[in-house]
Amino acid sequence: MFQTFADSASPKQGPPRLAALRAAMAAQRVQGFLVPRADAHQGEYVAPGDARLAWLTGFTGSAGFACVLPNVAGVFIDGRYRVQVRDQVADVFTPVHWPEVKLADWLSDHLGDGAKIGFDPWLHTTREIDALRKDLATTAIQIVATTNLVDEIWDDRPAPPGAAFTAYPDDLAGKSHATKRAEIAEALTKAGATSAVLTLPDSIAWLLNIRGTDVERNPVPQAFAVVHASGQVDLFARAGKADGIAQHLGPDVNVQDEGAFLGALAALQGPVQIDPKSAPQIVADTLEQAGTKVIHRDDPCLLPKAIKTVAEIAGARAAHLRDGAAMVNFLAWLDAKAPKGGLTEIDVVKALEGFRRATNALLDISFETISGAGEHGAIVHYRVTDSTNRPVRPGEVLLVDSGGQYIDGTTDITRTMAIGAPTKDQRACFTRVLQGMIAISRARFPTGVTGAHLDALARYPLWLAGQDYDHGTGHGVGAYLSVHEGPQGISRRAAPVPLEPGMILSNEPGYYREGEFGIRIENLITVVDAPALKGGDDRAMLAFDTLTYVPIDRRLIDAAMLTLDERAWLDDYHAKTLTLIGPRVDGAAFAWLDKACAPL
Amino acid sequence: MFQTFADSASPKQGPPRLAALRAAMAAQRVQGFLVPRADAHQGEYVAPGDARLAWLTGFTGSAGFACVLPNVAGVFIDGRYRVQVRDQVADVFTPVHWPEVKLADWLSDHLGDGAKIGFDPWLHTTREIDALRKDLATTAIQIVATTNLVDEIWDDRPAPPGAAFTAYPDDLAGKSHATKRAEIAEALTKAGATSAVLTLPDSIAWLLNIRGTDVERNPVPQAFAVVHASGQVDLFARAGKADGIAQHLGPDVNVQDEGAFLGALAALQGPVQIDPKSAPQIVADTLEQAGTKVIHRDDPCLLPKAIKTVAEIAGARAAHLRDGAAMVNFLAWLDAKAPKGGLTEIDVVKALEGFRRATNALLDISFETISGAGEHGAIVHYRVTDSTNRPVRPGEVLLVDSGGQYIDGTTDITRTMAIGAPTKDQRACFTRVLQGMIAISRARFPTGVTGAHLDALARYPLWLAGQDYDHGTGHGVGAYLSVHEGPQGISRRAAPVPLEPGMILSNEPGYYREGEFGIRIENLITVVDAPALKGGDDRAMLAFDTLTYVPIDRRLIDAAMLTLDERAWLDDYHAKTLTLIGPRVDGAAFAWLDKACAPL
Repeated sequence: MFQTFADSASPKQGPPRLAALRAAMAAQRVQGFLVPRADAHQGEYVAPGDARLAWLTGFTGSAGFACVLPNVAGVFIDGRYRVQVRDQVADVFTPVHWPEVKLADWLSDHLGDGAKIGFDPWLHTTREIDALRKDLATTAIQIVATTNLVDEIWDDRPAPPGAAFTAYPDDLAGKSHATKRAEIAEALTKAGATSAVLTLPDSIAWLLNIRGTDVERNPVPQAFAVVHASGQVDLFARAGKADGIAQHLGPDVNVQDEGAFLGALAALQGPVQIDPKSAPQIVADTLEQAGTKVIHRDDPCLLPKAIKTVAEIAGARAAHLRDGAAMVNFLAWLDAKAPKGGLTEIDVVKALEGFRRATNALLDISFETISGAGEHGAIVHYRVTDSTNRPVRPGEVLLVDSGGQYIDGTTDITRTMAIGAPTKDQRACFTRVLQGMIAISRARFPTGVTGAHLDALARYPLWLAGQDYDHGTGHGVGAYLSVHEGPQGISRRAAPVPLEPGMILSNEPGYYREGEFGIRIENLITVVDAPALKGGDDRAMLAFDTLTYVPIDRRLIDAAMLTLDERAWLDDYHAKTLTLIGPRVDGAAFAWLDKACAPL
Repeated sequence: MFQTFADSASPKQGPPRLAALRAAMAAQRVQGFLVPRADAHQGEYVAPGDARLAWLTGFTGSAGFACVLPNVAGVFIDGRYRVQVRDQVADVFTPVHWPEVKLADWLSDHLGDGAKIGFDPWLHTTREIDALRKDLATTAIQIVATTNLVDEIWDDRPAPPGAAFTAYPDDLAGKSHATKRAEIAEALTKAGATSAVLTLPDSIAWLLNIRGTDVERNPVPQAFAVVHASGQVDLFARAGKADGIAQHLGPDVNVQDEGAFLGALAALQGPVQIDPKSAPQIVADTLEQAGTKVIHRDDPCLLPKAIKTVAEIAGARAAHLRDGAAMVNFLAWLDAKAPKGGLTEIDVVKALEGFRRATNALLDISFETISGAGEHGAIVHYRVTDSTNRPVRPGEVLLVDSGGQYIDGTTDITRTMAIGAPTKDQRACFTRVLQGMIAISRARFPTGVTGAHLDALARYPLWLAGQDYDHGTGHGVGAYLSVHEGPQGISRRAAPVPLEPGMILSNEPGYYREGEFGIRIENLITVVDAPALKGGDDRAMLAFDTLTYVPIDRRLIDAAMLTLDERAWLDDYHAKTLTLIGPRVDGAAFAWLDKACAPL
């Protein structure tokens, strides 16, 4: 099993560690220290030795930070984690509602003039530090870069991951790293930069066609890189990690020890491009101290990485058919077992991972499976543990959000299933969510449109009923990379990046009734050039093509609420699902699929 | 008649004026001069003496500018005006496609190093001049403020409008100017400003509850003002214009001659707030020369002006019922006359203005009526003149976009009518436009949503057919003020301003087939708090309430394309229209209305 269910919460660990940290602060003559959740690469997952926030406080959420002062230790968490934090941290820590409470205001409330707050300049982005310094400008509180005081007191800190990087085949990437480097080089020249600093592992993975196993779930290499306007790349990684891919990297990629990174930055001739949203503060400081001219721009790999090659899209299709068959085996199993009772949420997670493993192609799950029965389905980021695990009872709705990492693609799918007979209200809510999901699936739109412009299409049926959901409709998805990637998205908060052919997005409207049930339906889709239509304008338009083919639970659909067009879309989707997935499943699963794909 | 039809194009006027301007440039030792379309107040309409661009070049479009150099005189126009400009200007002028061609690039192409371009610092905003200076930074071309060289050579330049300002009744405004001044004062204090400079006439009109007749169509006063954090206002206007409203203005509004404006700015203690999008460059220069600290922020009246009071909404409803009755009389007349043939586009404009005048309440039209028959309907900003006028032929579609200025509100409505039997294709296109218009009308949405998020709802039915329209879906509308006002809008380019109860917007999707026909359906709507719905979430939601009640041509609707909900909306809209407008029209018009409002 990739997924584990142990309760990592252990509030008792916190108090002695907090005391040790305060002693380290006193020795360093700082009145505070910031402990972020992120590592130097700002990813969604961190290696065990980078899980400083969890080690110190016990809090294991995916976002947040601690700020330790002599008399108070705030754990800043957003709305998702207000319940969880109370279970996980000891009462020597004070949960702080963030971003409602700004760090600068909280510091002003708790500290006198002249106080100094330490931070590790590897773990905070330049944007974050700039914003905090601006917020503190009217106070007499300073933030100062220090060594990492948590690392100083963390005696048995796990060693950094040592596994070697691997080459990602050109035929799956669809483009050699030489071609990619040449394209980025051209963009740098156009932007007037001599080089760009890359600190995001998935940017480096994409640029050099390499992968790693340094963190769970995201097959990315922990490394830093500088890409030059010549197309050459300096790759900085821990010793030995790139030895096996020397031939793949070739002479234009110069591998160095990670310890050489800052020195190499200091030696660069500017202007050097950095992305303030992801570059650690130490990168900006090093360039500034060297007197190098810096240009603030998006990481140059972000947009080209988001626009998949033909080979990557072909890989994604193959991965989704394979994953779809595993999902169908799982859903057939669920329908056979669940109504009898006795299954738990953890049983569901284990069975699903088992069906994915049975493909013999699963390299990892793409995130922790969300298996939420009944009221747990309404917790959007629910992750079942031994202590939260509960039975899946007949008469309930079960939400399962999961995905797999395969060599040819990353999947992400949510299906919500009726266990026994759903209520009329559950069917109405499910049907509205489905209508929104269909509206996105069917959308055609002119070039220039962003995901922020499309988001309302997914919500409109819910809005008309006075309902909504508090998450984005879609996020970008990597090609055997991170399941969440930018810059594109379908959300009011999505970056203002026009959708372009080749982008992969999730399409996942939902509806959540706290304490009762949760509904989400998620397919992955890819942006394509829309074929010209008879009577249509002479204008370039785009559309979405669906990657995910797995039945949507017809028992939860109130067919009378659908328009003819929506019904036609669903019947067509199910017919295609039967055609594509049917040949990949056997016996009982095929019989189940055949029935599940019947027209409404 | 407010509207006129004379062809203002007279290309012959241009060459001698251009020669005179070049002589003035030589005398001033500048190698170029900028002639914008705007006056110092950046409004949509200018007084005759401010129509410098039209006077010099003959070009009468609502946007664009000229840049005159010794050997070439560019007239920069956007896509809307590429045909018109060729008819209106002599060949001594060179049309330039703008914004595709940037002014700075064009200047670099035509001028050598060390050239100086003059501009009138009253007529260009600080944002415009800043951007141009930035674009020219890499060249050796300078732009320098000069006197207005067009005014120097314009011997018979019309005098500025002299009519007096009038007080706008508190019971229509819903808020005294004392209350408004106090609210703006509070906002200034919060922003850390001691005062704000107001240069937009509709901001001043709103703040002081005054109106003017200085330009056509927009009942605004030509004036400048400074509003202080004390709530006091200095109003700068031409002598005598405010004499009649001294009592209305009271002791806290200090009226001064417009000539005192710059001196008063120079004497201000900062920080002073200006809006770089609308403040003339001379305002920024004056403050800078005085060493005053300047804060760049939106004009503080923009948002409060957009959020109408209960009284303003009540006024808008009354104005729309009055205007709706005039429209019904017009449409009944049109249906009686047009099928017989013999009507022209100008006849239509005259008849419609006549029906509005017959209300005895029409103070102006709110813009030039667009009356486009057949292929003219596809010209989005078509304005009929004696030379473009054409018959309205049976078998065509007629698009009429018009509005009235009434003391209690500003209206703006578009209806597209079948003259005789429409084609199946015209009905399909009309029905898609209607579906988009209904989608906006029915929308409910959570607080925080902007018009940029809703725009796609209006386009989706067209998009699915490969169609779209190249204008926004909606713009803000004033309360007996400008028919186009910000900051809100329904458009991908709308400002990121959440919609708020009390805002008035147009809802006007369209479809245009060049050389054949144009379709647009436009109602005004206002944002309201949405009533809670059974089964809905516990979250604040907003909705739109319709202000415009005039039948939508049922002959152009393909009922089979509508969903049951869309059909119900339309039937309900027509039933309400009959109830609200029926009692306001007589005889043949009532009979027409009764039939036009029948359920589908």
